[in-house]
Amino acid sequence: MSKDHVQIFDTTLRDGEQVPGCKLNTPQKLEIAERLEALGVDIIEAGFPISSPGDFHSVTEISKLIKNTTVCGLTRAVKKDIDVAADALKYAKRPRIHTGIGTSESHIKFKFNCDQDEIIRRAVASVSHAKSYVEDVEFYAEDAGRTDNEFLARVCEAVIKAGATVLNIPDTTGYCLPEEYGAKIKYLKENVRGIEKAILSCHCHNDLGLATANSISGVQNGARQIECTINGIGERAGNTSLEEVVMVLRQHPYLNLDTKIDATHLYSLSQAVSDKMGVPIQPNKAIVGANAFAHSSGIHQDGVIKNRETYEIINPHDVGVTESAIVLTARSGRAALAYRAKKVGYDLTKLQLDEVYDEFLTFADRKKEINDEDIHAIVKSCNVEVTAVA
Amino acid sequence: MSKDHVQIFDTTLRDGEQVPGCKLNTPQKLEIAERLEALGVDIIEAGFPISSPGDFHSVTEISKLIKNTTVCGLTRAVKKDIDVAADALKYAKRPRIHTGIGTSESHIKFKFNCDQDEIIRRAVASVSHAKSYVEDVEFYAEDAGRTDNEFLARVCEAVIKAGATVLNIPDTTGYCLPEEYGAKIKYLKENVRGIEKAILSCHCHNDLGLATANSISGVQNGARQIECTINGIGERAGNTSLEEVVMVLRQHPYLNLDTKIDATHLYSLSQAVSDKMGVPIQPNKAIVGANAFAHSSGIHQDGVIKNRETYEIINPHDVGVTESAIVLTARSGRAALAYRAKKVGYDLTKLQLDEVYDEFLTFADRKKEINDEDIHAIVKSCNVEVTAVA
Repeated sequence: MSKDHVQIFDTTLRDGEQVPGCKLNTPQKLEIAERLEALGVDIIEAGFPISSPGDFHSVTEISKLIKNTTVCGLTRAVKKDIDVAADALKYAKRPRIHTGIGTSESHIKFKFNCDQDEIIRRAVASVSHAKSYVEDVEFYAEDAGRTDNEFLARVCEAVIKAGATVLNIPDTTGYCLPEEYGAKIKYLKENVRGIEKAILSCHCHNDLGLATANSISGVQNGARQIECTINGIGERAGNTSLEEVVMVLRQHPYLNLDTKIDATHLYSLSQAVSDKMGVPIQPNKAIVGANAFAHSSGIHQDGVIKNRETYEIINPHDVGVTESAIVLTARSGRAALAYRAKKVGYDLTKLQLDEVYDEFLTFADRKKEINDEDIHAIVKSCNVEVTAVA
Repeated sequence: MSKDHVQIFDTTLRDGEQVPGCKLNTPQKLEIAERLEALGVDIIEAGFPISSPGDFHSVTEISKLIKNTTVCGLTRAVKKDIDVAADALKYAKRPRIHTGIGTSESHIKFKFNCDQDEIIRRAVASVSHAKSYVEDVEFYAEDAGRTDNEFLARVCEAVIKAGATVLNIPDTTGYCLPEEYGAKIKYLKENVRGIEKAILSCHCHNDLGLATANSISGVQNGARQIECTINGIGERAGNTSLEEVVMVLRQHPYLNLDTKIDATHLYSLSQAVSDKMGVPIQPNKAIVGANAFAHSSGIHQDGVIKNRETYEIINPHDVGVTESAIVLTARSGRAALAYRAKKVGYDLTKLQLDEVYDEFLTFADRKKEINDEDIHAIVKSCNVEVTAVA
């Protein structure tokens, strides 16, 4: 049975770029957009055209550059926003306008100071207006994560009637647990008339560290688009990490869902986004962090040297990382030391290894990481007669 | 109804410290151990005593220092490891030995080259031996995430009989989905004879970005201990983040589970661990990242200025962060500009704001972030007659 396709909607250049310190200029955005197309994303959210002249220009240029991927621009549920977005997208081969409004009690009361009927009226007006420019209109129900499901279903039904092709159900504040978010998607699948005409989309934030799990729960319950960013950048604690959701689906084939991402580009694109935005990737970031495939404790190293799969579920090559690293520290064991010593030319006997290992530990207790040069110094200081590796 | 207590087992000093680049010396470990006790963790895993003389010394000193918190030392299912750990823990007021062995097919075949019965024999022997030293013995079934549930239940039953007080069910390779991990815990709760005598513990790794969700799924299904680290550091993509699981439980009171963590210490301890280990925290790290409570897009800023709760589910004060930041960038709107302008002394009329905002956007398109000095320059260049704030 062929797998169901989950669309990847990348918002690195919109939700990612709006973050303090992440601003890019147009040439930088163009380079990343081109690489996102090569990665195989289905939709590139290129910006929020009305927000500034610079962003308008970037969306225009990305629309000219991109060949097959859908290019999307964000708007509020405001006529002028939509006019400006349509203008910025006019050169796109596959343009999409992404419009929407807050639907939670908190947003209706504090942001808009109106009522539910007025929200639906504005939502429908915006989708209809966007539809006058482009066929592909995505609607976001902001703060859907905290919106009452019954009202959310009413909103969805109304915007589908107005022509929305995609319904974005954002957990804007990163509040939901996976089961809650999944149940929300399921509820909409089962209760919105006309739902078969639209794709449900997951847009999750990571304020509690649950964005990836929530997005996966969403697609398990019927959503078919995930909105995400490279390295999980985005407002506050960021968005769902593209690299994580793609690899979760690939590592769990029984879910019967897949994307068309070429994962071998993941590592280099992650590095490029980090460099250009000046945002570091923490070493323990899943999939793309410097330590994601590094092994340093003795127990783990011993296992990986015997068989990689004892401690690694992903082959580093599959995501564009050259190889697993066996890093020598004071927590490393004999197997790792022998392995690395062999790599730099020493074939140690068991007895020699015991002697060199004691010296290694004394050395490693004083130093964070033992490099090749240190290995030579340690072996030398032990005065053992070692056989050079053939 | 009072909430069920979930124990927090912090392994920053063991699973965290074994990571490339994270090594700490004894005084650094002592400072962090003391702060972990002040934070309110239930158990501090202080190290792996047999791994090196330095680590043995650290566990000994931490055992002397810590007053009420359980201090735990890691071992393999090896007699000498356990003897050494018991020695390192001899000054601890509440010592725990954490011993265990791989139980998955991959580990049994490639690491131990033996069979299931031999694994159970070694597991039981280790727990019995540890029990001869201390009352509190935790057993880990390494790679439990990929271990067949039926065999896992047999192992658990055997080690409980041998006196294990805690059963650690590690998703060593970070493979499980939340529903799978939760189902595993549920299976053990329902199928292990004597399970009421022991606490089930979640030890999840973040290779696919699911560690937090898996741990929460574990406690929803009956586990009552979570093993985690500050900032989520640990082997490869790291362990479950302490700050994330604690705040998930606190933000979802209906789960009826809580910890005794004093969350107001979270931010400063996160900074201390990052500084001492030299491991940066990415700005978009949940709860403790630099941007976790920063708002920069116009839509979000407008909402937060009207009411913090429109875009924030956690009050920054609750986790020790001074205040939400309204950061001015090219994606900011008029509301944020007016808010920040007022903070530096300008009370702009609506018409003045329009004029200053246009100038602001031109400026912001060229610069990543607009600071107070820039605001003065922008207002000045607009030549508007502004009223100073009273």
